[in-house]
Amino acid sequence: MKLKGNVLVAQGGGPTAVINQSLVGAVLESRKFVEVNRVYGAIHGVRGIIDEEFLDLTQETTHNLEQVAKTPSSALFSTRDKPDEKYCENIFKVFKAHNIRYFFYIGGNDSANTVEIVNRYASESDYEFRAIHIPKTIDNDIYLNDHTPGYGSAAKYVAQAFVGINLDNRALPGVHIGVVMGRDAGFLTAASSLAKKYPDDGPHLIYLPERVFDKEEFLKDVKKVYKKYNRCVIAVSEGIKDKEGNPIASSIINSKKEIDSHGNILLSQSNLGSLLSNYIKNNLNIKRVRSDTFGYLQRSFAGCVSDVDQHEAREVGEKAAQFAIWHEVNGSITINRIGNYSVDYRLARLKDVANKTKVMDAKFINSKGNNITTSFINYVKPLVGDIYESQRLIAPTVKKILKI
Amino acid sequence: MKLKGNVLVAQGGGPTAVINQSLVGAVLESRKFVEVNRVYGAIHGVRGIIDEEFLDLTQETTHNLEQVAKTPSSALFSTRDKPDEKYCENIFKVFKAHNIRYFFYIGGNDSANTVEIVNRYASESDYEFRAIHIPKTIDNDIYLNDHTPGYGSAAKYVAQAFVGINLDNRALPGVHIGVVMGRDAGFLTAASSLAKKYPDDGPHLIYLPERVFDKEEFLKDVKKVYKKYNRCVIAVSEGIKDKEGNPIASSIINSKKEIDSHGNILLSQSNLGSLLSNYIKNNLNIKRVRSDTFGYLQRSFAGCVSDVDQHEAREVGEKAAQFAIWHEVNGSITINRIGNYSVDYRLARLKDVANKTKVMDAKFINSKGNNITTSFINYVKPLVGDIYESQRLIAPTVKKILKI
Repeated sequence: MKLKGNVLVAQGGGPTAVINQSLVGAVLESRKFVEVNRVYGAIHGVRGIIDEEFLDLTQETTHNLEQVAKTPSSALFSTRDKPDEKYCENIFKVFKAHNIRYFFYIGGNDSANTVEIVNRYASESDYEFRAIHIPKTIDNDIYLNDHTPGYGSAAKYVAQAFVGINLDNRALPGVHIGVVMGRDAGFLTAASSLAKKYPDDGPHLIYLPERVFDKEEFLKDVKKVYKKYNRCVIAVSEGIKDKEGNPIASSIINSKKEIDSHGNILLSQSNLGSLLSNYIKNNLNIKRVRSDTFGYLQRSFAGCVSDVDQHEAREVGEKAAQFAIWHEVNGSITINRIGNYSVDYRLARLKDVANKTKVMDAKFINSKGNNITTSFINYVKPLVGDIYESQRLIAPTVKKILKI
Repeated sequence: MKLKGNVLVAQGGGPTAVINQSLVGAVLESRKFVEVNRVYGAIHGVRGIIDEEFLDLTQETTHNLEQVAKTPSSALFSTRDKPDEKYCENIFKVFKAHNIRYFFYIGGNDSANTVEIVNRYASESDYEFRAIHIPKTIDNDIYLNDHTPGYGSAAKYVAQAFVGINLDNRALPGVHIGVVMGRDAGFLTAASSLAKKYPDDGPHLIYLPERVFDKEEFLKDVKKVYKKYNRCVIAVSEGIKDKEGNPIASSIINSKKEIDSHGNILLSQSNLGSLLSNYIKNNLNIKRVRSDTFGYLQRSFAGCVSDVDQHEAREVGEKAAQFAIWHEVNGSITINRIGNYSVDYRLARLKDVANKTKVMDAKFINSKGNNITTSFINYVKPLVGDIYESQRLIAPTVKKILKI
């Protein structure tokens, strides 16, 4: 006989554009099973579990769930709480009190860890219980996954932002730096290249946390591109580090020379864009140097979603319910590419996913470490789907008469 | 008999998402007239005129023009050159050499001024010539216009960015500040409010260059909203000024107290977001304060266009050709609202538009100067058209059992 009881779904970490698809997938699929009495949603992730702040999603209408699915950012709200053993013990107490037998936690690497600890408590107490981690992160850095829900849509935003930045930079030439999220993995920054169409389109240079950022090489790279095109568009990950592994922001600040030449402006990582801009202005003879920090816009902008990402986010939610309730197993849902382009969903052991960070494969980064490869474009294209295409004038030039 | 000769089109100032619609409107319409021999496009605005850098757009295919029309940012490139009398004299020389009889310049207030000066040279030299200024600017600040092409699309970007920021801030509460373009006019910042749906949706506070920014009042406002909602989303224009008319960035830096409490971080206007964040952190007991500067993303993001804006941008381009070639007049095209929602296009005198800045009507701003009014929403809604809608869960809460 199948395990009977209630289902609890929660969302953790940074929101994505499609995280509610996973929520709705898990909720609607769970509601189909006779073993399931109620489907609850915890408000503010694990924090809401401790506080017993639950919504009864069994009493949510299907239409409203479908509308919520299309809304970006966690509809159940999120938390930055990182549960320790004591915290997880309390979670488990609440689960027992509310007869929660199925727990689906939508989140990143940290969330997989939480699911694992709670699951251990259940098994040590002989409390019958199934727990599934549902992957999500715009960083695309979860182990054992070809990619993660949330990434495709954020990648689409970044790619289309760079289409615009490239065109803006063509119209009013200079150097433009776009700072993209990604502390340890460069997937999102690399997506800046996705919608390049003409050979001289930017971004011309891409710097990722997977490779050492060398300031002198950086200057040489920019100089070379600027000489060739009279402009230069750069995509840089917020997480770029020097050869000692220190974030570039702090490394430049700690270098006395840069403090002197830059004044005291550049302290926070969020200023990486102005920091690199000033570095270029001070060392190369280029007047127009601009930067944008994509910040929160790239993870929550409403109305820029990848269809594939949306569908997959829905499916990982559905699969969580199916694995737990049909198959009575625990684990972390993974996305595996089985065709070009097709995926299937498998269940990995929680401990094989928890607290680990996937970074970009070496074949995705060029040998100089300042751009991506065609192999990466082939990897990312199907995840983003339809993307905005720019078009140029191709008319012939007119012969000069005056030559003033 | 109508004036025969060549047409020249150019684009100036900051690019917009729909500026190429105006270009293509002017080009395609001009190509219909037998009076017109060639239609040229100047590369890099007035700079390209001086340098005789022209494309022969008569030899551009219609399909390609239509594709370019949908591409954001100036396809003919732009310039920040502000022509003086000498510069305009040279422009006029080039016009004569290339038998340019019709000049269409797509740009902001500055561009209208250039058109006026060049036109004066023509009329003083008895050179038969028609010159039309075609309005564009995301700032929406051109005199005598109900609104300007480019604004609706940028407003849509800002509104949808704030939908996302608001949802993100609900999921992970704190204070979030979004810094929007607009040095003297607050129209774009005000558009942050457009997609608000629920009474507690952000932005909760909006600060515009049209009203004095008082730091103490600002703190009181934030404190009040934060107390009510346990979060606060703020839209602020980059151009906010203190009562002496100084930009807030510099005013806070010059105040000794803030230098001491903030360190020396805050020097540039581009840091307005971190400046206000630190001000809140240091004076209110709120830990999570974040900011985003929308920067170039808001004017060139590919794939976020208002349909109305797109059509109107096309029409002002077409009307320029019609006014100049059918009616043999000079001036600046204006957009006038004649219904809800419908517009017509008229021709204003260049000097009535040149170098003037339209700011927000008093009825668009609330009496406290920290938000906009319903009147503004009614004004802006038809300009943006379809906009992204968010949806919330409405399920009932579950009764607590443990109350740990």
